[in-house]
Amino acid sequence: MAADSSDTQKTPGELRAAARSGDFSGTTSGMAAGFVQCNLVIVPAEFAHDFADFCRRNPKPCPLLATSPSSGDTSLPELGKDIDVRTDLPRYRRWESGKLTAEPVDLCADWQEDHVAFALGCSFSFEEALLADGLEIRNITEKVNVPMYRTNQACHPAGPFWGNLVVSMRPMKPKDAIRAIQICTRFPSVHGAPVHFGDPSQIGIEDVSNPDFGDSVTIAEGEIPVFWACGVTPQVALENARLPLAFTHAPGHMLVTDKTNAGLALL
Amino acid sequence: MAADSSDTQKTPGELRAAARSGDFSGTTSGMAAGFVQCNLVIVPAEFAHDFADFCRRNPKPCPLLATSPSSGDTSLPELGKDIDVRTDLPRYRRWESGKLTAEPVDLCADWQEDHVAFALGCSFSFEEALLADGLEIRNITEKVNVPMYRTNQACHPAGPFWGNLVVSMRPMKPKDAIRAIQICTRFPSVHGAPVHFGDPSQIGIEDVSNPDFGDSVTIAEGEIPVFWACGVTPQVALENARLPLAFTHAPGHMLVTDKTNAGLALL
Repeated sequence: MAADSSDTQKTPGELRAAARSGDFSGTTSGMAAGFVQCNLVIVPAEFAHDFADFCRRNPKPCPLLATSPSSGDTSLPELGKDIDVRTDLPRYRRWESGKLTAEPVDLCADWQEDHVAFALGCSFSFEEALLADGLEIRNITEKVNVPMYRTNQACHPAGPFWGNLVVSMRPMKPKDAIRAIQICTRFPSVHGAPVHFGDPSQIGIEDVSNPDFGDSVTIAEGEIPVFWACGVTPQVALENARLPLAFTHAPGHMLVTDKTNAGLALL
Repeated sequence: MAADSSDTQKTPGELRAAARSGDFSGTTSGMAAGFVQCNLVIVPAEFAHDFADFCRRNPKPCPLLATSPSSGDTSLPELGKDIDVRTDLPRYRRWESGKLTAEPVDLCADWQEDHVAFALGCSFSFEEALLADGLEIRNITEKVNVPMYRTNQACHPAGPFWGNLVVSMRPMKPKDAIRAIQICTRFPSVHGAPVHFGDPSQIGIEDVSNPDFGDSVTIAEGEIPVFWACGVTPQVALENARLPLAFTHAPGHMLVTDKTNAGLALL
């Protein structure tokens, strides 16, 4: 069910309750303005250390904000009151041996006592900071998903997790790109400063008008593409790891937390 | 007389003493590593408020670090012990009605009781911070003056002072440019973050290989030109103001101060 406009006014706790009850299964983009939304990854405990290490070694695409207090614990007390990672996201993805096999609205039937959840920072937080500064975010203006691309930049592998960096792209005038770099530098826990701008081929992107994920956006005369490390990177690493069983959020269906975006600022 | 290599080891006070005695009249590039060097502008007191206001309104090209304690006072106690602005720079320029009329090694014969000196931040400080971070500065590698260009970007005028922004250019890979933006953001008092990168025509530069001041540098494959607000801007505004009499440092012949570059960092 899609969200109605009143959902933008709901508190994070109300949104999680609506997802938990089944009343809300839509995307969380634009919901609970001002609060941090997270990517979610759930892996069996035997792979938890390797996944945490993958995040630590690749902090720009995988900024780890919180993990389960212990295996099988469904709460994330660092991020909010009474969070239940099995039910509080509107939609999930189930991965078996690296293949997407389902998009359930909860993980109640799938949850196992050895599961460990990881919550990672998401671009919604820095997009809010850029908008607040008066910058335009093209994918928001054009009401589409941000364009994302596989690059030729290898992440540091950890255990079974490996893969190339995935980036998101927002076109900007150079002056605005400089401002965006300054603002995003303040937010290392939500991907931080861009990793590249300008010529896409320098990072292995052949056709900027043909993203690997998300939608294409207009690049106007005088604008250059600016590329940020993207939270799809850990999902690709998860696919490559071919774990027997793992879960993520469904794209755009994020964990809405009680933490504020403003509180993530480094300075 | 050119500096010998031992001058790089001299303290700021020793360098000023050598300029004062006439033993040193060369450029100060690379001298007294770690210490702030300044652009100098001297105007009659009746124009001092307007010039200070021009700096305040155009802080990126004209970052004002210190002014004379009062008209006719030749010291700059904010910047160093026993500074005498008439003698302590290796070479000066005299401007009459906006025309360059001499390049004296001191201002003893020219100094008047209504003169007011302004010391402005200089790119040497941020270049040092970029080098310390491992970035390459092309004009340093190629042992030439940084290329500088007149732009089509008007400064805010103040009294008789007006003109377009002048920028300096350093070519970099996008990844290094992002890092340079981060580092220079910490140093607003020495021009701060770049003002533009990429397409030079967007700021009115027709031919990047043909600078208006300084020397051309190599732009390698995969690099983009990065543009900083430049301390030649106030000199252009001074020419435009056509004051009966004014003085500046000669290019590259800076006021070497007792302040450290590290101490200029905002954070």
